[in-house]
Amino acid sequence: MDQTTAPKASKPLPAVGDRHVDPHSYPDGIAFLDGQYLPMSQAKVSVLDWGFLHSDATYDTVHVWDGRFFRLDLHLDRFFGGLEKLRMTIPFDRDGVAEILYNCVVLSGHRAAYVEMLCTRGASPTFSRDPRQAINRFMAFAVPFGSVANAEQLQRGLHVAISDKVRIPPASIDPAIKNYHWLDLVRGLYDAYDGGAETALILDFNGNVAEGPGFNVFCVKDGKLSTPAIGVLPGITRRTVFDLCAEEGLVAAATDVSVAALKAADEVFITSTAGGIMPVTRIDRAAIADGKVGPITGRLMALYWQKHDDPAWSSQVNYP
Amino acid sequence: MDQTTAPKASKPLPAVGDRHVDPHSYPDGIAFLDGQYLPMSQAKVSVLDWGFLHSDATYDTVHVWDGRFFRLDLHLDRFFGGLEKLRMTIPFDRDGVAEILYNCVVLSGHRAAYVEMLCTRGASPTFSRDPRQAINRFMAFAVPFGSVANAEQLQRGLHVAISDKVRIPPASIDPAIKNYHWLDLVRGLYDAYDGGAETALILDFNGNVAEGPGFNVFCVKDGKLSTPAIGVLPGITRRTVFDLCAEEGLVAAATDVSVAALKAADEVFITSTAGGIMPVTRIDRAAIADGKVGPITGRLMALYWQKHDDPAWSSQVNYP
Repeated sequence: MDQTTAPKASKPLPAVGDRHVDPHSYPDGIAFLDGQYLPMSQAKVSVLDWGFLHSDATYDTVHVWDGRFFRLDLHLDRFFGGLEKLRMTIPFDRDGVAEILYNCVVLSGHRAAYVEMLCTRGASPTFSRDPRQAINRFMAFAVPFGSVANAEQLQRGLHVAISDKVRIPPASIDPAIKNYHWLDLVRGLYDAYDGGAETALILDFNGNVAEGPGFNVFCVKDGKLSTPAIGVLPGITRRTVFDLCAEEGLVAAATDVSVAALKAADEVFITSTAGGIMPVTRIDRAAIADGKVGPITGRLMALYWQKHDDPAWSSQVNYP
Repeated sequence: MDQTTAPKASKPLPAVGDRHVDPHSYPDGIAFLDGQYLPMSQAKVSVLDWGFLHSDATYDTVHVWDGRFFRLDLHLDRFFGGLEKLRMTIPFDRDGVAEILYNCVVLSGHRAAYVEMLCTRGASPTFSRDPRQAINRFMAFAVPFGSVANAEQLQRGLHVAISDKVRIPPASIDPAIKNYHWLDLVRGLYDAYDGGAETALILDFNGNVAEGPGFNVFCVKDGKLSTPAIGVLPGITRRTVFDLCAEEGLVAAATDVSVAALKAADEVFITSTAGGIMPVTRIDRAAIADGKVGPITGRLMALYWQKHDDPAWSSQVNYP
């Protein structure tokens, strides 16, 4: 059978424009790229950048709350760690990156912001397939703060479904390199929507619980906290829970968390820079314990937000 | 310890530009996005598109050789299959996409082109985290043809190293959805460079050979061909080898291929839209058989290129 997909030659050839006219709208915010501060509508990556074509990139996100960055140092540590593991270089040191992030926030005017720094492999002008010939590209942006859980969900707890999708294992991608490889999480999210839930947890390669789209998970049983140990992003909010537990004399461990253990827990919550500590009250349509936000979850949520004006944990943005 | 990363308040605030001034150069070619045909320098994705931030995208690449598309129908089948699995919709049917691809090639003037169609999850104007609220975005582009192997490597065979990185398993991401999740392959490539090789093969989760960055692999032993069966992209060039073998009366099987079996083979070659059938003559610094391009590899390479003007396998681009 002949190939049948050639269009009719009689059709006139379309014209080539010289500049893209973008019909889309973007959230209010400021981006930094190529030494320039720009509105979000101008923050774009070439389709030929390996950061897009091969998701060959690393990033970190930090939040600003009430005009203060929260634990920025830890996010910078993780970002520079990822750059080193991916053998990427950027023309800024830690202070240089911090200055760009502060500038993005100040210029945006946002007092509650979601702030991202990222580096792509970039590209070479010849489109060489050798990543060593690519010029790495650093970008950053500040947009309005967003949360995994909305106000109602924070109040009554999220409804979560557990998908059978398996989080990309560490033998494939070191989860300490914060990365954009999310198709497993996205497909898990659609599984959750199909099951009437609001977000998803997916499994590790042993069938235990791993993490969800952009968050870690904790459970509380008999006053002790556990969170999955392997194959998960070492989240800064996850670490913050360990730090808060140490201050409060609560026992917290990174260990295997089975699906059964999670469902039988007294309390469950998730952690993310996008929302902090967020309660979960239903898993796979069944209530966790009495289906209400538990006391340890509530106490940690309160402590988490209290730390946001502590100078040991946060730093002020100087708006004009 | 206080957070120490706030910049000095005395520094003047930078200005915000209204339009990005792009200092980078791009290969010659034509892209299609938002209904517009544009030079490659204008082919950009918003940093807020989930296709970038979550690598939530699928794509396909097809090549044009001597002014003819090669097996475009198979690439369209795979692309539309990926869209369905990711629950993405585009405002074009198969003929519509084919017309856009033909137009990109004609407008570029390239008679040897690497042509990519892709769809990202897109974004919602509010930056909602719910992928169901995102407007999916279709793009396409034609740039000059590129090959995994250069002219010298095609002549004397590629030198490959086997990395211990494990290809993202199918339980995490269905490899039939052609995707941009490549960090395992990119890190394997750096392992290969460190070992003095030119490209890499990485493993499946059982420790057998899987695939390399953008290609499948075959070995020939006692006249019979094998290629890894699981956890690999179902490549169109891989399929083409099976089709050529059927025509030629050669036995080819998809099966487990151990590292030892690969190294003990009589012949090894890789397959990709970017270069076709390409010989491998050294693995981990040791010669495959006598270290020369083998007779079956050579015969399949010749047949592969002969098929490029067969109307059952290729279709003509009508340049003005």
